[in-house]
Amino acid sequence: MVRGELLFDGNVKQVYATDDPEMVLFHFKDVATAFNNVKKAVFPNKGIVDNKISSYIFEYLKRNGVSTHYVEMVNDREQLCRKICIIPLELVVRNYIAGSIADKLGIEDGTKAQTVIYDLYYNNDALGDPMINDSEAVAIGLVSFKDLEIIYSTARKINGLLLDLFGRAGIKLVDLKLEFGKTSGGEIIVSDEISPDTCRFWDSATDNRLDKDRFRLDLGNIVASYEVVLDRLESLNLE
Amino acid sequence: MVRGELLFDGNVKQVYATDDPEMVLFHFKDVATAFNNVKKAVFPNKGIVDNKISSYIFEYLKRNGVSTHYVEMVNDREQLCRKICIIPLELVVRNYIAGSIADKLGIEDGTKAQTVIYDLYYNNDALGDPMINDSEAVAIGLVSFKDLEIIYSTARKINGLLLDLFGRAGIKLVDLKLEFGKTSGGEIIVSDEISPDTCRFWDSATDNRLDKDRFRLDLGNIVASYEVVLDRLESLNLE
Repeated sequence: MVRGELLFDGNVKQVYATDDPEMVLFHFKDVATAFNNVKKAVFPNKGIVDNKISSYIFEYLKRNGVSTHYVEMVNDREQLCRKICIIPLELVVRNYIAGSIADKLGIEDGTKAQTVIYDLYYNNDALGDPMINDSEAVAIGLVSFKDLEIIYSTARKINGLLLDLFGRAGIKLVDLKLEFGKTSGGEIIVSDEISPDTCRFWDSATDNRLDKDRFRLDLGNIVASYEVVLDRLESLNLE
Repeated sequence: MVRGELLFDGNVKQVYATDDPEMVLFHFKDVATAFNNVKKAVFPNKGIVDNKISSYIFEYLKRNGVSTHYVEMVNDREQLCRKICIIPLELVVRNYIAGSIADKLGIEDGTKAQTVIYDLYYNNDALGDPMINDSEAVAIGLVSFKDLEIIYSTARKINGLLLDLFGRAGIKLVDLKLEFGKTSGGEIIVSDEISPDTCRFWDSATDNRLDKDRFRLDLGNIVASYEVVLDRLESLNLE
């Protein structure tokens, strides 16, 4: 597999073409960003830990029948992924109400949601990634209602699988962000990454934060906390 | 029917108790407000026109099988309504994308929506009436999913009926805001008002605005425009 042209140079990740037109290479940088890139910093090894956690989770999902863009980890910082056409939506699945959503709803941070919350955002930097809903997304042509059915049922399945996985690792899955794309054959699959950059992970016993809130809230020990997540996952004895 | 205690003194409407514990009296003031009450002004006779339009629409909905809180118009400024327990949600139904939503979605003002948009807002002044979605509303205990099914199906029916009514009046129904409440028996019915204060009405031929945007956007002729709506409705020959 030959690394080709740089297709996308993001703050945290780069995407390269490969010699297979159906495949791309994801490269994880040592960067953290928050608040729509207003806050940004470098943390040595962060990209390696993110790559390993996301690869671990995508392999776990694959074994459990969930289609993602992930093919295999190529090295410490890179993974081979299926090329997809990005659906410009982010779906945040919340088991607990934490972060800005708690302020928005006037609810205490960390409150268990009485039902799982599914929040859809329009992934559009120029518009500030606004929250939208199903009918808005369809009305402006981003997806069809049929696409959304697949997206929500996939998200529901992933949340169930990850609640189980992280429960066994002594970690509360507070929320997770999912992105999706369409393959050249039109299949909708999970894309991007699933890691402490895109989820809230709280230690089950102490509520200690093991995710990007350590950066957002200046709590320190960012990479060390991400490593706790990786260590706990790797020490699980999965069937 | 005796007018009792003032139960609610809003910017635009007052609600009084009556001698029937199941009934209240809505009184329409001559006030317009916009942008969460930041902009506010008095327009003589506005309350009368609002009361007449809203009464006309609620009577039309009743004849077509939609339950609302409206019982009857008592005088030029007042209507008798069933007392309800307010559900703190606003549902905006959009046939066209106009106003702040157009900016949010990066769409030209007045674009026809490819599917009808249903936007839910949490009616909570302290929180700034944020946009929410079904799962959030259920997760914080505002409604049940069953309640939302009734609310959406009622909204769909109302939108269909009003598209027909206003189409015959030469008026484009751009969007409408609905509020709902529960009766003492637990029935979910439409509450508040349906008027140029809560809808966007554009002249079908000219796109001239006949609603509260005349106030929001300082277009003048506010009450005269509301009267155009009332005159056109009253000149319809409904079965």
